[in-house]
Amino acid sequence: MTAKFIVIEGLEGAGKSTAIALCQQVLTQHQIEFINTREPGGTPLAESLRTLIKASHEEKVSPEAELLIMYAARAQLIHNVINPALANDVWVVGDRHDLSSRAYQGGGRQIDDATLAALSKIVLKDLKPDLTLYLDIDPKIGLARAAGRGELDRIEQEQLSFFQRSRAKYLEIAEQDPSIKVIDAAQGIEHVHRDIQAALEQFLQGL
Amino acid sequence: MTAKFIVIEGLEGAGKSTAIALCQQVLTQHQIEFINTREPGGTPLAESLRTLIKASHEEKVSPEAELLIMYAARAQLIHNVINPALANDVWVVGDRHDLSSRAYQGGGRQIDDATLAALSKIVLKDLKPDLTLYLDIDPKIGLARAAGRGELDRIEQEQLSFFQRSRAKYLEIAEQDPSIKVIDAAQGIEHVHRDIQAALEQFLQGL
Repeated sequence: MTAKFIVIEGLEGAGKSTAIALCQQVLTQHQIEFINTREPGGTPLAESLRTLIKASHEEKVSPEAELLIMYAARAQLIHNVINPALANDVWVVGDRHDLSSRAYQGGGRQIDDATLAALSKIVLKDLKPDLTLYLDIDPKIGLARAAGRGELDRIEQEQLSFFQRSRAKYLEIAEQDPSIKVIDAAQGIEHVHRDIQAALEQFLQGL
Repeated sequence: MTAKFIVIEGLEGAGKSTAIALCQQVLTQHQIEFINTREPGGTPLAESLRTLIKASHEEKVSPEAELLIMYAARAQLIHNVINPALANDVWVVGDRHDLSSRAYQGGGRQIDDATLAALSKIVLKDLKPDLTLYLDIDPKIGLARAAGRGELDRIEQEQLSFFQRSRAKYLEIAEQDPSIKVIDAAQGIEHVHRDIQAALEQFLQGL
Protein backbone atom coordinates (compact mmCIF):
# COMPACT_ATOMS: atom_id res chain seq x y z
CA MET A 1 0.00 0.00 0.00
CA THR A 2 1.50 3.34 -1.03
CA ALA A 3 1.61 6.11 1.54
CA LYS A 4 -1.38 8.47 1.66
CA PHE A 5 -1.80 12.19 2.23
CA ILE A 6 -4.66 13.08 4.59
CA VAL A 7 -5.59 16.71 5.16
CA ILE A 8 -7.71 18.32 7.88
CA GLU A 9 -9.36 21.55 6.81
CA GLY A 10 -11.74 24.08 8.27
CA LEU A 11 -12.28 27.61 9.50
CA GLU A 12 -10.80 28.92 12.73
CA GLY A 13 -12.45 27.25 15.70
CA ALA A 14 -13.84 24.31 13.68
CA GLY A 15 -11.90 21.81 15.80
CA LYS A 16 -8.97 20.95 13.51
CA SER A 17 -6.56 20.17 16.36
CA THR A 18 -8.90 17.61 17.88
CA ALA A 19 -9.51 16.06 14.46
CA ILE A 20 -5.77 15.79 13.85
CA ALA A 21 -5.25 14.09 17.22
CA LEU A 22 -8.02 11.65 16.38
CA CYS A 23 -6.53 10.96 12.97
CA GLN A 24 -3.13 10.27 14.53
CA GLN A 25 -4.78 7.88 16.96
CA VAL A 26 -6.54 5.93 14.20
CA LEU A 27 -3.38 5.68 12.08
CA THR A 28 -1.38 4.50 15.10
CA GLN A 29 -4.00 1.85 15.82
CA HIS A 30 -3.56 0.66 12.24
CA GLN A 31 0.24 0.69 12.70
CA ILE A 32 0.67 3.20 9.92
CA GLU A 33 3.80 5.34 10.02
CA PHE A 34 3.06 9.04 9.48
CA ILE A 35 4.33 12.58 9.92
CA ASN A 36 2.41 15.75 10.66
CA THR A 37 2.62 18.98 8.68
CA ARG A 38 0.98 22.33 9.08
CA GLU A 39 0.39 25.06 6.53
CA PRO A 40 1.56 27.63 6.06
CA GLY A 41 4.76 26.32 7.64
CA GLY A 42 6.39 23.00 8.36
CA THR A 43 9.96 23.81 7.30
CA PRO A 44 12.27 26.52 8.69
CA LEU A 45 11.78 28.78 5.64
CA ALA A 46 8.04 28.06 5.47
CA GLU A 47 7.68 28.84 9.18
CA SER A 48 9.41 32.20 8.59
CA LEU A 49 6.87 32.87 5.83
CA ARG A 50 4.07 31.84 8.22
CA THR A 51 5.26 34.36 10.80
CA LEU A 52 5.48 37.05 8.13
CA ILE A 53 2.01 36.43 6.72
CA LYS A 54 0.24 36.20 10.07
CA ALA A 55 1.84 39.34 11.48
CA SER A 56 0.28 42.76 11.16
CA HIS A 57 2.37 45.06 8.98
CA GLU A 58 2.77 48.81 8.80
CA GLU A 59 1.35 48.55 5.27
CA LYS A 60 -1.63 46.78 3.73
CA VAL A 61 -0.73 43.30 2.50
CA SER A 62 -1.91 42.98 -1.11
CA PRO A 63 -4.13 39.95 -1.80
CA GLU A 64 -1.67 38.69 -4.44
CA ALA A 65 1.33 38.97 -2.09
CA GLU A 66 -0.55 37.05 0.60
CA LEU A 67 -1.52 34.39 -1.92
CA LEU A 68 2.02 34.01 -3.26
CA ILE A 69 3.55 33.80 0.21
CA MET A 70 1.11 30.99 1.03
CA TYR A 71 2.11 29.12 -2.13
CA ALA A 72 5.83 29.77 -1.55
CA ALA A 73 5.53 28.14 1.87
CA ARG A 74 3.54 25.28 0.32
CA ALA A 75 6.14 24.77 -2.43
CA GLN A 76 8.90 24.52 0.16
CA LEU A 77 6.91 22.09 2.34
CA ILE A 78 5.97 19.85 -0.59
CA HIS A 79 9.51 19.82 -1.95
CA ASN A 80 11.34 19.26 1.32
CA VAL A 81 8.85 17.35 3.49
CA ILE A 82 5.64 16.00 1.92
CA ASN A 83 7.03 14.48 -1.28
CA PRO A 84 10.08 12.91 0.42
CA ALA A 85 7.83 11.37 3.12
CA LEU A 86 5.38 9.88 0.64
CA ALA A 87 8.28 8.58 -1.47
CA ASN A 88 9.56 6.81 1.66
CA ASP A 89 6.19 5.17 2.33
CA VAL A 90 5.45 7.49 5.23
CA TRP A 91 1.92 8.90 5.39
CA VAL A 92 1.36 12.64 5.85
CA VAL A 93 -1.33 14.20 8.03
CA GLY A 94 -1.68 17.84 7.04
CA ASP A 95 -3.10 20.64 9.15
CA ARG A 96 -4.42 22.62 6.15
CA HIS A 97 -3.22 22.42 2.56
CA ASP A 98 -4.15 23.77 -0.87
CA LEU A 99 -7.87 23.85 -0.13
CA SER A 100 -7.24 26.53 2.52
CA SER A 101 -5.82 28.88 -0.13
CA ARG A 102 -8.76 28.17 -2.41
CA ALA A 103 -11.18 28.92 0.41
CA TYR A 104 -9.46 31.88 2.11
CA GLN A 105 -7.70 33.60 -0.79
CA GLY A 106 -10.13 32.42 -3.46
CA GLY A 107 -13.37 32.72 -1.48
CA GLY A 108 -12.42 35.19 1.26
CA ARG A 109 -10.19 37.51 -0.78
CA GLN A 110 -12.15 36.85 -3.98
CA ILE A 111 -9.09 36.03 -6.12
CA ASP A 112 -10.33 34.40 -9.31
CA ASP A 113 -10.39 30.63 -9.82
CA ALA A 114 -8.01 30.76 -12.81
CA THR A 115 -5.28 32.35 -10.69
CA LEU A 116 -5.73 29.78 -7.95
CA ALA A 117 -5.73 26.94 -10.46
CA ALA A 118 -2.56 28.24 -12.13
CA LEU A 119 -0.70 28.47 -8.82
CA SER A 120 -1.92 25.06 -7.66
CA LYS A 121 -0.62 23.54 -10.84
CA ILE A 122 2.78 25.23 -10.52
CA VAL A 123 3.24 24.21 -6.89
CA LEU A 124 1.40 20.90 -6.44
CA LYS A 125 2.15 19.35 -9.83
CA ASP A 126 0.84 15.78 -9.38
CA LEU A 127 0.29 15.96 -5.63
CA LYS A 128 -3.30 15.72 -4.41
CA PRO A 129 -4.55 14.74 -0.96
CA ASP A 130 -6.05 11.25 -0.92
CA LEU A 131 -8.54 12.26 1.75
CA THR A 132 -9.57 15.65 3.08
CA LEU A 133 -11.78 16.04 6.13
CA TYR A 134 -13.39 19.46 5.99
CA LEU A 135 -14.83 20.45 9.37
CA ASP A 136 -17.74 22.67 8.50
CA ILE A 137 -18.85 25.33 10.95
CA ASP A 138 -20.74 28.61 10.88
CA PRO A 139 -17.98 31.22 11.20
CA LYS A 140 -19.95 33.00 13.92
CA ILE A 141 -19.55 29.94 16.14
CA GLY A 142 -15.99 29.12 15.01
CA LEU A 143 -14.66 32.65 15.50
CA ALA A 144 -16.20 32.87 18.96
CA ARG A 145 -14.34 29.66 19.87
CA ALA A 146 -11.09 30.90 18.30
CA ALA A 147 -11.35 34.27 20.05
CA GLY A 148 -11.69 32.43 23.35
CA ARG A 149 -8.25 30.90 22.76
CA GLY A 150 -6.46 34.26 22.75
CA GLU A 151 -5.28 36.95 20.36
CA LEU A 152 -6.35 36.72 16.72
CA ASP A 153 -3.72 37.01 13.95
CA ARG A 154 -3.95 39.34 10.92
CA ILE A 155 -6.11 36.97 8.89
CA GLU A 156 -8.26 35.88 11.82
CA GLN A 157 -9.10 39.58 12.37
CA GLU A 158 -10.98 39.73 9.05
CA GLN A 159 -14.67 40.56 9.05
CA LEU A 160 -17.34 37.88 9.33
CA SER A 161 -18.20 38.23 5.62
CA PHE A 162 -14.64 37.15 4.73
CA PHE A 163 -15.13 33.87 6.61
CA GLN A 164 -18.62 33.42 5.21
CA ARG A 165 -17.18 33.64 1.69
CA SER A 166 -14.39 31.23 2.69
CA ARG A 167 -16.90 28.73 4.06
CA ALA A 168 -19.04 28.98 0.92
CA LYS A 169 -15.96 28.24 -1.21
CA TYR A 170 -15.02 25.25 0.99
CA LEU A 171 -18.50 23.82 0.51
CA GLU A 172 -18.58 24.60 -3.21
CA ILE A 173 -15.29 22.74 -3.83
CA ALA A 174 -16.21 19.85 -1.50
CA GLU A 175 -19.38 19.30 -3.48
CA GLN A 176 -17.35 18.69 -6.64
CA ASP A 177 -14.58 16.57 -5.14
CA PRO A 178 -15.44 13.16 -3.66
CA SER A 179 -12.06 13.01 -1.86
CA ILE A 180 -13.28 15.82 0.41
CA LYS A 181 -15.59 14.66 3.22
CA VAL A 182 -17.66 17.33 4.93
CA ILE A 183 -17.93 16.83 8.70
CA ASP A 184 -20.63 18.79 10.52
CA ALA A 185 -18.48 20.39 13.22
CA ALA A 186 -21.41 22.15 14.88
CA GLN A 187 -22.69 18.91 16.40
CA GLY A 188 -21.85 17.80 19.93
CA ILE A 189 -18.23 16.77 20.30
CA GLU A 190 -19.04 13.02 20.49
CA HIS A 191 -20.90 13.14 17.21
CA VAL A 192 -18.08 15.07 15.53
CA HIS A 193 -15.59 12.46 16.77
CA ARG A 194 -17.78 9.62 15.60
CA ASP A 195 -18.10 11.13 12.10
CA ILE A 196 -14.35 11.79 11.78
CA GLN A 197 -13.52 8.27 12.95
CA ALA A 198 -16.09 6.78 10.56
CA ALA A 199 -14.71 8.76 7.60
CA LEU A 200 -11.17 7.61 8.41
CA GLU A 201 -12.12 3.96 8.87
CA GLN A 202 -14.11 4.01 5.64
CA PHE A 203 -11.12 5.48 3.82
CA LEU A 204 -8.73 2.86 5.26
CA GLN A 205 -11.09 0.01 4.43
CA GLY A 206 -11.39 1.24 0.86
CA LEU A 207 -7.63 0.94 0.25
CA MET B 1 2.69 63.00 -20.68
CA THR B 2 1.87 60.02 -18.47
CA ALA B 3 4.46 58.76 -15.98
CA LYS B 4 6.84 56.08 -17.20
CA PHE B 5 8.42 53.01 -15.61
CA ILE B 6 12.13 52.61 -16.37
CA VAL B 7 13.98 49.50 -15.21
CA ILE B 8 17.70 48.81 -14.93
CA GLU B 9 18.60 45.14 -15.26
CA GLY B 10 21.74 43.04 -15.31
CA LEU B 11 23.83 40.41 -13.62
CA GLU B 12 25.76 41.03 -10.43
CA GLY B 13 28.63 43.42 -11.11
CA ALA B 14 27.20 44.73 -14.38
CA GLY B 15 27.10 48.29 -13.03
CA LYS B 16 23.42 48.72 -12.18
CA SER B 17 24.02 51.23 -9.36
CA THR B 18 25.96 53.57 -11.63
CA ALA B 19 23.31 53.26 -14.34
CA ILE B 20 20.58 54.08 -11.84
CA ALA B 21 22.48 57.18 -10.65
CA LEU B 22 22.89 58.27 -14.27
CA CYS B 23 19.21 57.72 -14.95
CA GLN B 24 18.24 59.79 -11.92
CA GLN B 25 20.52 62.56 -13.14
CA VAL B 26 18.97 62.60 -16.62
CA LEU B 27 15.42 62.62 -15.24
CA THR B 28 16.30 65.44 -12.86
CA GLN B 29 17.76 67.46 -15.74
CA HIS B 30 14.46 67.00 -17.56
CA GLN B 31 12.60 68.09 -14.38
CA ILE B 32 10.78 64.78 -14.20
CA GLU B 33 9.51 63.71 -10.79
CA PHE B 34 10.40 60.09 -9.98
CA ILE B 35 10.85 57.52 -7.21
CA ASN B 36 13.30 54.64 -6.96
CA THR B 37 12.40 51.02 -6.26
CA ARG B 38 14.46 47.92 -5.87
CA GLU B 39 13.47 44.27 -6.28
CA PRO B 40 13.03 42.11 -4.44
CA GLY B 41 12.08 44.70 -1.83
CA GLY B 42 10.88 48.26 -1.72
CA THR B 43 8.16 47.95 0.92
CA PRO B 44 8.50 46.76 4.55
CA LEU B 45 6.96 43.34 3.78
CA ALA B 46 8.86 43.00 0.49
CA GLU B 47 12.13 43.88 2.24
CA SER B 48 11.45 41.11 4.79
CA LEU B 49 10.96 38.73 1.88
CA ARG B 50 14.21 40.02 0.34
CA THR B 51 16.11 39.26 3.54
CA LEU B 52 14.54 35.79 3.68
CA ILE B 53 15.35 34.89 0.08
CA LYS B 54 18.92 36.16 0.15
CA ALA B 55 19.83 34.44 3.41
CA SER B 56 21.29 30.97 3.58
CA HIS B 57 18.93 28.51 5.24
CA GLU B 58 19.42 25.27 7.10
CA GLU B 59 17.47 23.61 4.28
CA LYS B 60 17.65 23.76 0.50
CA VAL B 61 15.32 26.44 -0.90
CA SER B 62 13.13 24.84 -3.59
CA PRO B 63 13.20 26.64 -6.97
CA GLU B 64 9.42 27.13 -6.83
CA ALA B 65 9.55 28.63 -3.32
CA GLU B 66 12.27 31.05 -4.40
CA LEU B 67 10.26 32.00 -7.47
CA LEU B 68 7.05 32.58 -5.51
CA ILE B 69 8.78 34.66 -2.84
CA MET B 70 10.21 36.87 -5.60
CA TYR B 71 6.73 37.33 -7.08
CA ALA B 72 5.14 37.90 -3.65
CA ALA B 73 7.59 40.75 -3.06
CA ARG B 74 6.88 42.07 -6.56
CA ALA B 75 3.11 41.91 -6.02
CA GLN B 76 3.43 43.92 -2.83
CA LEU B 77 5.70 46.52 -4.46
CA ILE B 78 3.47 46.94 -7.50
CA HIS B 79 0.32 47.19 -5.39
CA ASN B 80 1.65 49.56 -2.75
CA VAL B 81 4.35 51.59 -4.53
CA ILE B 82 4.69 51.31 -8.33
CA ASN B 83 1.05 51.54 -9.39
CA PRO B 84 0.20 54.37 -6.94
CA ALA B 85 3.24 56.36 -8.12
CA LEU B 86 2.41 55.98 -11.82
CA ALA B 87 -1.22 56.86 -11.09
CA ASN B 88 0.01 60.07 -9.46
CA ASP B 89 2.13 61.01 -12.50
CA VAL B 90 5.36 60.12 -10.74
CA TRP B 91 7.89 58.14 -12.76
CA VAL B 92 9.45 54.97 -11.35
CA VAL B 93 13.10 53.95 -11.73
CA GLY B 94 13.40 50.27 -10.83
CA ASP B 95 16.54 48.44 -9.75
CA ARG B 96 15.45 45.09 -11.26
CA HIS B 97 11.89 43.97 -12.05
CA ASP B 98 10.12 41.06 -13.73
CA LEU B 99 12.91 40.45 -16.24
CA SER B 100 15.23 39.44 -13.36
CA SER B 101 12.89 36.58 -12.43
CA ARG B 102 12.68 35.48 -16.05
CA ALA B 103 16.47 35.51 -16.31
CA TYR B 104 17.46 34.10 -12.90
CA GLN B 105 14.59 31.75 -12.09
CA GLY B 106 13.66 31.01 -15.71
CA GLY B 107 17.17 30.87 -17.18
CA GLY B 108 19.32 30.16 -14.12
CA ARG B 109 16.98 27.78 -12.30
CA GLN B 110 15.49 26.48 -15.54
CA ILE B 111 11.87 26.97 -14.52
CA ASP B 112 9.74 26.68 -17.64
CA ASP B 113 8.49 29.70 -19.59
CA ALA B 114 4.80 28.83 -19.05
CA THR B 115 5.21 29.01 -15.26
CA LEU B 116 6.99 32.35 -15.49
CA ALA B 117 4.38 33.70 -17.90
CA ALA B 118 1.53 32.58 -15.63
CA LEU B 119 3.07 34.28 -12.58
CA SER B 120 3.88 37.46 -14.49
CA LYS B 121 0.29 37.67 -15.62
CA ILE B 122 -1.06 37.16 -12.09
CA VAL B 123 1.25 39.75 -10.55
CA LEU B 124 1.89 42.37 -13.22
CA LYS B 125 -1.55 42.41 -14.85
CA ASP B 126 -1.28 45.38 -17.26
CA LEU B 127 1.99 46.76 -15.91
CA LYS B 128 4.98 46.67 -18.24
CA PRO B 129 8.16 48.75 -18.06
CA ASP B 130 8.25 51.44 -20.73
CA LEU B 131 12.01 51.16 -21.02
CA THR B 132 14.45 48.56 -19.71
CA LEU B 133 18.20 49.06 -19.88
CA TYR B 134 19.84 45.66 -19.68
CA LEU B 135 23.55 45.95 -18.82
CA ASP B 136 25.10 42.95 -20.49
CA ILE B 137 28.28 41.49 -19.05
CA ASP B 138 30.10 38.17 -19.10
CA PRO B 139 29.33 36.69 -15.66
CA LYS B 140 33.02 35.88 -15.17
CA ILE B 141 33.79 39.61 -15.21
CA GLY B 142 30.61 40.65 -13.33
CA LEU B 143 31.05 38.12 -10.52
CA ALA B 144 34.69 39.10 -10.04
CA ARG B 145 33.54 42.72 -9.60
CA ALA B 146 30.69 41.70 -7.25
CA ALA B 147 33.01 39.50 -5.17
CA GLY B 148 35.33 42.46 -4.75
CA ARG B 149 32.46 44.33 -3.02
CA GLY B 150 32.22 41.85 -0.15
CA GLU B 151 30.29 38.76 0.86
CA LEU B 152 28.05 37.10 -1.70
CA ASP B 153 24.46 36.24 -0.81
CA ARG B 154 22.78 32.85 -1.33
CA ILE B 155 21.91 33.48 -4.98
CA GLU B 156 25.21 35.22 -5.79
CA GLN B 157 26.98 32.07 -4.56
CA GLU B 158 25.56 30.03 -7.45
CA GLN B 159 27.93 28.44 -9.94
CA LEU B 160 29.09 30.25 -13.06
CA SER B 161 26.81 28.11 -15.27
CA PHE B 162 23.77 29.49 -13.39
CA PHE B 163 24.73 33.04 -14.37
CA GLN B 164 25.60 32.00 -17.90
CA ARG B 165 22.09 30.59 -18.29
CA SER B 166 20.66 33.78 -16.74
CA ARG B 167 22.60 35.93 -19.17
CA ALA B 168 21.49 33.83 -22.13
CA LYS B 169 17.86 34.27 -21.05
CA TYR B 170 18.29 38.04 -20.64
CA LEU B 171 19.64 38.25 -24.19
CA GLU B 172 16.98 35.92 -25.59
CA ILE B 173 14.14 38.02 -24.15
CA ALA B 174 15.80 41.33 -25.07
CA GLU B 175 15.99 40.21 -28.68
CA GLN B 176 12.21 39.81 -28.81
CA ASP B 177 11.25 42.96 -26.92
CA PRO B 178 12.10 46.36 -28.41
CA SER B 179 11.48 48.09 -25.07
CA ILE B 180 14.62 46.37 -23.72
CA LYS B 181 17.86 48.08 -24.74
CA VAL B 182 21.04 46.03 -24.39
CA ILE B 183 23.99 48.07 -23.12
CA ASP B 184 27.45 46.54 -23.51
CA ALA B 185 28.66 46.83 -19.92
CA ALA B 186 32.08 45.35 -20.68
CA GLN B 187 33.22 48.55 -22.38
CA GLY B 188 35.21 51.27 -20.65
CA ILE B 189 33.10 53.16 -18.14
CA GLU B 190 32.86 56.33 -20.31
CA HIS B 191 31.43 54.33 -23.19
CA VAL B 192 28.93 52.58 -20.93
CA HIS B 193 27.82 55.97 -19.58
CA ARG B 194 27.53 57.40 -23.06
CA ASP B 195 25.36 54.46 -24.22
CA ILE B 196 23.08 54.64 -21.18
CA GLN B 197 22.66 58.38 -21.57
CA ALA B 198 21.97 58.04 -25.29
CA ALA B 199 19.35 55.33 -24.69
CA LEU B 200 17.60 57.50 -22.09
CA GLU B 201 17.67 60.65 -24.25
CA GLN B 202 16.35 58.71 -27.22
CA PHE B 203 13.53 57.34 -25.07
CA LEU B 204 12.62 60.79 -23.74
CA GLN B 205 12.68 62.36 -27.20
CA GLY B 206 10.37 59.63 -28.50
CA LEU B 207 7.63 60.49 -26.00
